[in-house]
Amino acid sequence: MNSKSVKESFTLMTELVMPNDTNHFGNLMGGNLLKWMDVASGISAMKHANSMVVTASVDSVSFTESIKLGDVVSIEAQVTRAFNTSMEVYMEVYKRSYDQDERILCNKAFYTFVAMGVNGKPKKVSEANPETEKEHELFRGAKRRRDLRLILAGRMKPGDAIELKNLFLPDDATQA
Amino acid sequence: MNSKSVKESFTLMTELVMPNDTNHFGNLMGGNLLKWMDVASGISAMKHANSMVVTASVDSVSFTESIKLGDVVSIEAQVTRAFNTSMEVYMEVYKRSYDQDERILCNKAFYTFVAMGVNGKPKKVSEANPETEKEHELFRGAKRRRDLRLILAGRMKPGDAIELKNLFLPDDATQA
Amino acid sequence: MNSKSVKESFTLMTELVMPNDTNHFGNLMGGNLLKWMDVASGISAMKHANSMVVTASVDSVSFTESIKLGDVVSIEAQVTRAFNTSMEVYMEVYKRSYDQDERILCNKAFYTFVAMGVNGKPKKVSEANPETEKEHELFRGAKRRRDLRLILAGRMKPGDAIELKNLFLPDDATQA
Amino acid sequence: MNSKSVKESFTLMTELVMPNDTNHFGNLMGGNLLKWMDVASGISAMKHANSMVVTASVDSVSFTESIKLGDVVSIEAQVTRAFNTSMEVYMEVYKRSYDQDERILCNKAFYTFVAMGVNGKPKKVSEANPETEKEHELFRGAKRRRDLRLILAGRMKPGDAIELKNLFLPDDATQA
Amino acid sequence: MNSKSVKESFTLMTELVMPNDTNHFGNLMGGNLLKWMDVASGISAMKHANSMVVTASVDSVSFTESIKLGDVVSIEAQVTRAFNTSMEVYMEVYKRSYDQDERILCNKAFYTFVAMGVNGKPKKVSEANPETEKEHELFRGAKRRRDLRLILAGRMKPGDAIELKNLFLPDDATQA
Amino acid sequence: MNSKSVKESFTLMTELVMPNDTNHFGNLMGGNLLKWMDVASGISAMKHANSMVVTASVDSVSFTESIKLGDVVSIEAQVTRAFNTSMEVYMEVYKRSYDQDERILCNKAFYTFVAMGVNGKPKKVSEANPETEKEHELFRGAKRRRDLRLILAGRMKPGDAIELKNLFLPDDATQA
Repeated sequence: MNSKSVKESFTLMTELVMPNDTNHFGNLMGGNLLKWMDVASGISAMKHANSMVVTASVDSVSFTESIKLGDVVSIEAQVTRAFNTSMEVYMEVYKRSYDQDERILCNKAFYTFVAMGVNGKPKKVSEANPETEKEHELFRGAKRRRDLRLILAGRMKPGDAIELKNLFLPDDATQA
Repeated sequence: MNSKSVKESFTLMTELVMPNDTNHFGNLMGGNLLKWMDVASGISAMKHANSMVVTASVDSVSFTESIKLGDVVSIEAQVTRAFNTSMEVYMEVYKRSYDQDERILCNKAFYTFVAMGVNGKPKKVSEANPETEKEHELFRGAKRRRDLRLILAGRMKPGDAIELKNLFLPDDATQA
Repeated sequence: MNSKSVKESFTLMTELVMPNDTNHFGNLMGGNLLKWMDVASGISAMKHANSMVVTASVDSVSFTESIKLGDVVSIEAQVTRAFNTSMEVYMEVYKRSYDQDERILCNKAFYTFVAMGVNGKPKKVSEANPETEKEHELFRGAKRRRDLRLILAGRMKPGDAIELKNLFLPDDATQA
Repeated sequence: MNSKSVKESFTLMTELVMPNDTNHFGNLMGGNLLKWMDVASGISAMKHANSMVVTASVDSVSFTESIKLGDVVSIEAQVTRAFNTSMEVYMEVYKRSYDQDERILCNKAFYTFVAMGVNGKPKKVSEANPETEKEHELFRGAKRRRDLRLILAGRMKPGDAIELKNLFLPDDATQA
Repeated sequence: MNSKSVKESFTLMTELVMPNDTNHFGNLMGGNLLKWMDVASGISAMKHANSMVVTASVDSVSFTESIKLGDVVSIEAQVTRAFNTSMEVYMEVYKRSYDQDERILCNKAFYTFVAMGVNGKPKKVSEANPETEKEHELFRGAKRRRDLRLILAGRMKPGDAIELKNLFLPDDATQA
Repeated sequence: MNSKSVKESFTLMTELVMPNDTNHFGNLMGGNLLKWMDVASGISAMKHANSMVVTASVDSVSFTESIKLGDVVSIEAQVTRAFNTSMEVYMEVYKRSYDQDERILCNKAFYTFVAMGVNGKPKKVSEANPETEKEHELFRGAKRRRDLRLILAGRMKPGDAIELKNLFLPDDATQA
């Protein structure tokens, strides 16, 4: 099983916010953005795995910026790390109004996917190699986020997630 | 500001999985389910708030059951608790195949919403009163999930979330 | 061939009226409601038949209430009676505005479906047993509505529909 | 208030049956056809009224022909008669397979519409004049169908619909 | 290989411009019209070929008339000429506002299609016979447009397109 | 009126081919690609113009590569040149199968747009400056393509398009 650079999975998706994507205030509905992010990150995972993929999880996403009818939404997705048959994908969501040159960061999010073979069963994927400093940081954090997912899904006990535990312990406890 | 029973916000949404909702394996794409859940929980929040709402966040969701083309998906949504201008909504997602009498639980999820006044600004909502045992448990957990959201969004320090901290502490530390 | 309670086919579908569902006045187009009703009643028939179904007919529907952009539409569907391979489904359509606690009854309608086996041929279905008073009344009326459908489709002569005939006869004629 | 020939409202709509329009058997879902018919007949009514229209009712429709994925559906719609602010539209639905030169008649249906002024209130429409023999027959039948609609909607007593009553009376009763 | 009249491929498609079809100015987006034209002309080619077809090319289209939300768009399509396995289809696009009796010509366009056999390979089609004067003119022009397509696609040298060359030559050069 | 680099308008749009986008052979329908290209190039023009835009024309497009269900389509769009209130956008369309690392060039196309002010009237745009060799070549060709569009739209006589004329003239005629 050879390895691939995380960069090779880079995907940029661009959408124009149309009337049916919006709520009563003319703002993009959160559910539509979640769907677009699923497609963008799924394509990124497909590129890494060279196989079909299915969504395994979405991490918490908070919506702080409103995105307006007619705005251009661009989603940048890239695999952060591979775990056997699964991959974590990191996304940044930007909006840009037609009358401005700057785009504004709206969301950061993590989705995970499982690679599927033609037989419909999970399939091993290549390792994902980070290269830049930012890619290395995302790679390292992937283990911690994976532990949190397992805890939240009730498949790991909080006490077994060493890195996460340290976040909540008093300073002297960690020194002990 | 009077209060309402959480039961009054109960919403049941039913969808039939159509070809364009599915991936190469004929399974419902995760992003479509996230979008349907956004609509179902948003309607539930609207019922509680008697106002328009916007999605504020979605908590981690993991997809463990595959849902097939032609399956009937039903989403049950109900407000768990209100916090000033925001509400947390709890959902259970079920699937049912055409040839079976039983429905199967596929997902549990929490979305939060902010009530918006006609001026487009956040608006205070009624308190949400739990009645059954299950509703009380969801009500109590809402505070802990809210802390986790704030930490994950970088707006609270892990050490300040008392209840969450206890989950990660060794037994004797909590006794101390 | 065993029988099932009509209650087991109960289906509740909820939709939010979106921009593309509406006409120039911002009201839900009749054709969209007819389509939603087809899905809701089809799911109800699938539940009774435990098989795929195809729409056989829709009875007259009149649209008297306008439903607005942003309204929540809920459709309650339940099988009234089964006839060999076909089923009649009764529906009530309600609308609810975001700023009100009451829902308003907009339409009552009957659709009929034929159960289809995996070979694509019509398939016998279980008997449908009414329990409540309302269910019994719908069950009894189903025969009369079926006769009317056959007459309207040109497959029965008006004179052969005894119950319908009585509606149009002068009192003394029925006494004779 | 001048009058227009019914021919002026003639509308031909053509649709290609796409994957998302079909059920598990690859057949056009009844609800989609009902929606297309609503658009086709609504356009026909708009042409007669020179104003926006809203759907008032759909008469019973029975689905006897299955229409397949990839078939071409053509809907011919034409106003039959105008009643003050409302119009009845008659439709014939045809299907045609890509490999055949003949089209097959699948459905006949009647929808009614109310013309709406820019103030959102019903608006008087021109009289609709039949010219051909078929148009005259549809014109004459319009009164009878209108009575049946009123009875079915509970707004007329069966005994008051003279023409309909005769259909159900024994021969000697009508002679009397 | 027998022949068919071009008239037999005549297709009329009618669409109502809905909110999601429009841009910020409430006008039909050019891309939606291009898509509708693809369906209309594809159906026309299917009728001539009695087989499935795939789009081979679209000639230049210019958009000079704006089409508004709520307008009725009608597209008339008819095969002009067949070339072995391909067909050219000519279209005229009309718009009509709800409050007017006249329709306005908006676009003329040519799309070409290749007929496909059930084996997924190109398939010979019947000859297409023009009858009216307009049909004959479109038939004659089809050869010239075909040359221009081949030049624009880089598959023919401009000097080899005799008819086109004459358009650009000075009068005395053509006399020579 | 200041100027902008053409690079600033670069837009990358990515789409996953879904069931409803495809024809009977499971291939992307040409009309859908034309629509996606309209959105991608329209966004590119908006970025250059800092205003809303409307589609003015699409140049000939030929479809030589079939794109399959599940393929990833990426469209790269960039303004080539601005002419007063209009802009030409050049696009390259690529497809990529899930099981391959290479993407394949499928189409090259030119769309033109007109910038629109908030008053709904055409609005002057900045000059578009090419920098790379490829950008300069596209810039130079824009004048020739514009002449061809005007000829094809019947708004310029072939003899007045000097550059185009030379393409069709015999070598000795151009020497003369």
